[in-house]
Amino acid sequence: MFVSKHCTLGLGCGGLLLLATACASAPPLEATRPEPPTPLSAPAPTATAPAVPLAAKPADRLPSWKEGPTKQAILSFVARVTTPGPDFVAVPERIATFDNDGTLWTEQPMYIQLAFTLDRVRELAPQHPEWKAKDPFKSVLAGNLAGALAGGEKSLVPLLVATHTGMTTTEFEQVVKAWFATAKHPKFGRPYAECVYQPMLEVLSLLRENGFKTFIVSGGGIDFMRPVTEQLYGIPPEQVVGSTGKLKFELRDGKPVLVREAGIDFVNDVEGKPVGIQRHIGRRPIAAFGNSDGDQQMLEWTAAGSGARLMLLVHHTDAEREVAYDRKSSIGKLDAALDEANTKGWLVASMKDDWLTIFPAPHPSASVPPR
Amino acid sequence: MFVSKHCTLGLGCGGLLLLATACASAPPLEATRPEPPTPLSAPAPTATAPAVPLAAKPADRLPSWKEGPTKQAILSFVARVTTPGPDFVAVPERIATFDNDGTLWTEQPMYIQLAFTLDRVRELAPQHPEWKAKDPFKSVLAGNLAGALAGGEKSLVPLLVATHTGMTTTEFEQVVKAWFATAKHPKFGRPYAECVYQPMLEVLSLLRENGFKTFIVSGGGIDFMRPVTEQLYGIPPEQVVGSTGKLKFELRDGKPVLVREAGIDFVNDVEGKPVGIQRHIGRRPIAAFGNSDGDQQMLEWTAAGSGARLMLLVHHTDAEREVAYDRKSSIGKLDAALDEANTKGWLVASMKDDWLTIFPAPHPSASVPPR
Repeated sequence: MFVSKHCTLGLGCGGLLLLATACASAPPLEATRPEPPTPLSAPAPTATAPAVPLAAKPADRLPSWKEGPTKQAILSFVARVTTPGPDFVAVPERIATFDNDGTLWTEQPMYIQLAFTLDRVRELAPQHPEWKAKDPFKSVLAGNLAGALAGGEKSLVPLLVATHTGMTTTEFEQVVKAWFATAKHPKFGRPYAECVYQPMLEVLSLLRENGFKTFIVSGGGIDFMRPVTEQLYGIPPEQVVGSTGKLKFELRDGKPVLVREAGIDFVNDVEGKPVGIQRHIGRRPIAAFGNSDGDQQMLEWTAAGSGARLMLLVHHTDAEREVAYDRKSSIGKLDAALDEANTKGWLVASMKDDWLTIFPAPHPSASVPPR
Repeated sequence: MFVSKHCTLGLGCGGLLLLATACASAPPLEATRPEPPTPLSAPAPTATAPAVPLAAKPADRLPSWKEGPTKQAILSFVARVTTPGPDFVAVPERIATFDNDGTLWTEQPMYIQLAFTLDRVRELAPQHPEWKAKDPFKSVLAGNLAGALAGGEKSLVPLLVATHTGMTTTEFEQVVKAWFATAKHPKFGRPYAECVYQPMLEVLSLLRENGFKTFIVSGGGIDFMRPVTEQLYGIPPEQVVGSTGKLKFELRDGKPVLVREAGIDFVNDVEGKPVGIQRHIGRRPIAAFGNSDGDQQMLEWTAAGSGARLMLLVHHTDAEREVAYDRKSSIGKLDAALDEANTKGWLVASMKDDWLTIFPAPHPSASVPPR
């Protein structure tokens, strides 16, 4: 049922349309962004000196966040759930879930997993001379993305099957690591491994330093993310929840392998996110971070628990430093979830207004060496 | 495909046969158990005094294990992977997986989840007057288990659907907790929550104290185990891998719920265990513990990694203190895996010969209060 409703292997379906236009024109943003809600009784920034002496002034744990109500609401939430009192939450229940595409790393002009898919088609083409005469491969190889994806979602299936299946889990992991070690983002000119959001890295660290266990809960393919999540985000593979394909246990020459087979197992997106959280984590998050309508149900599920809660949407408002898109975008569409955030007082972080920095400083070690 | 091959909701299929005979006659054990293999170059117990002064003598971390090669092999493995040298394993890679039924808690005369199922049928019967005339419910209510399960695996399905589905995940969790708070084992006369193996609790603690992350990887229903695993084993819900049924996200009066639906999602048994490990954990264990042929592939998958490995089977050899069964048992059959263990030098722990104690000392707090 998921397959007919959502896209294959967790690549958002809407992305195809934007791909076809090669990100030529970003749709207009929501005209007037409402003031960031302050549902968490965030303390107003005060002009009086802090009670602690200067030498003991605590370091700013969110240095890439501009001072303001959004930053204060995040800090206030963390303080309240970790301080004895009515909002205190025991360490084991401090579960935070993060969407990945558009929340932790960039998703424009196309999902990083789709960029990988297209690169792999080009890389594997010499072993498949028949692709030269066969769409969607033919169009991909000719650089005609719009043509490759003219058939809609169905066009993507043979590309995904050709690049994501038919090998062991170990082989796929090596391919993914090797790709991340060299591939660069077309707009930002930096390795994909560096196209992560510095302010969100700071939130991940802040939460972990305060006893939280941080999980990725993404529509992306689980085995595409896991080879790099520890290095990029400090999130180990067992804390990555994503879409999964079918796996088969086999003995090859007496040695067991897990073979990646064609076929969807689970699409961890939209209504699938709370299901994936229940299956994988088995308890409800107290904080959830997303950026699109695909995260709406995860935030609803998080909000419905008792006690202090933090729901935050990253709003891509910065055309200059990143890409500006929301209600009309085919990738990372943020429409119904934005309405719900405004109605219910979920936090909305504007990349333009709330973030002093978008990406981390370039660093050679940010690319992932193959192993 | 899993459904036709394995049993429903992760209750081992073979269990039905033994249930029908109500554990009247335990089958004969493997006649001559070979000496416990010592593949891990366990240090021989020495008669010379230890180099440390008596006052600093390290506490015995496995006090319920009899001194001997099995205990020494476990201790030696832990020492080797945590000591700088050729077998050292970095903390994040110290993953250990444990089967549950028959490895951490008792599985005779029937799986604990099946005992729960039958109790729930009796508890729900007043709301279902039609059950009095309808098998398998009719036979369960008449105390005729053999009759209830005469139809084989298929008979179990309506019982499981009636007791495990049609409610929210939160409701089911409460039902499970309430049951564990009062239900007692028919043979041992103690709460099921105390029918766990003390020597295995010590192994879990030993591993965690040495930086391991411990996971349950069981054919049992994931949401049947999770409400009690933290209290019984110190294993949090996110480290429980099990069989799963279908879940559906719904808004009820605007409030999101996850509804347990009839229908299998995944059977985490036999070839499913390595698949479940890959999906949930995303890396290969370096130690795996089981007791039946259902664990064979998990141990094979663990053994196939490089570096130091520990594979251990619990052998139910103690008719007096627990139940003796192996090759001929319909519950927890240990046959092909025992052969492989003997061939490959996996550890086989005899409950009779290696364990000084079977169960923990009875304690009122061991039962799980409902919340």
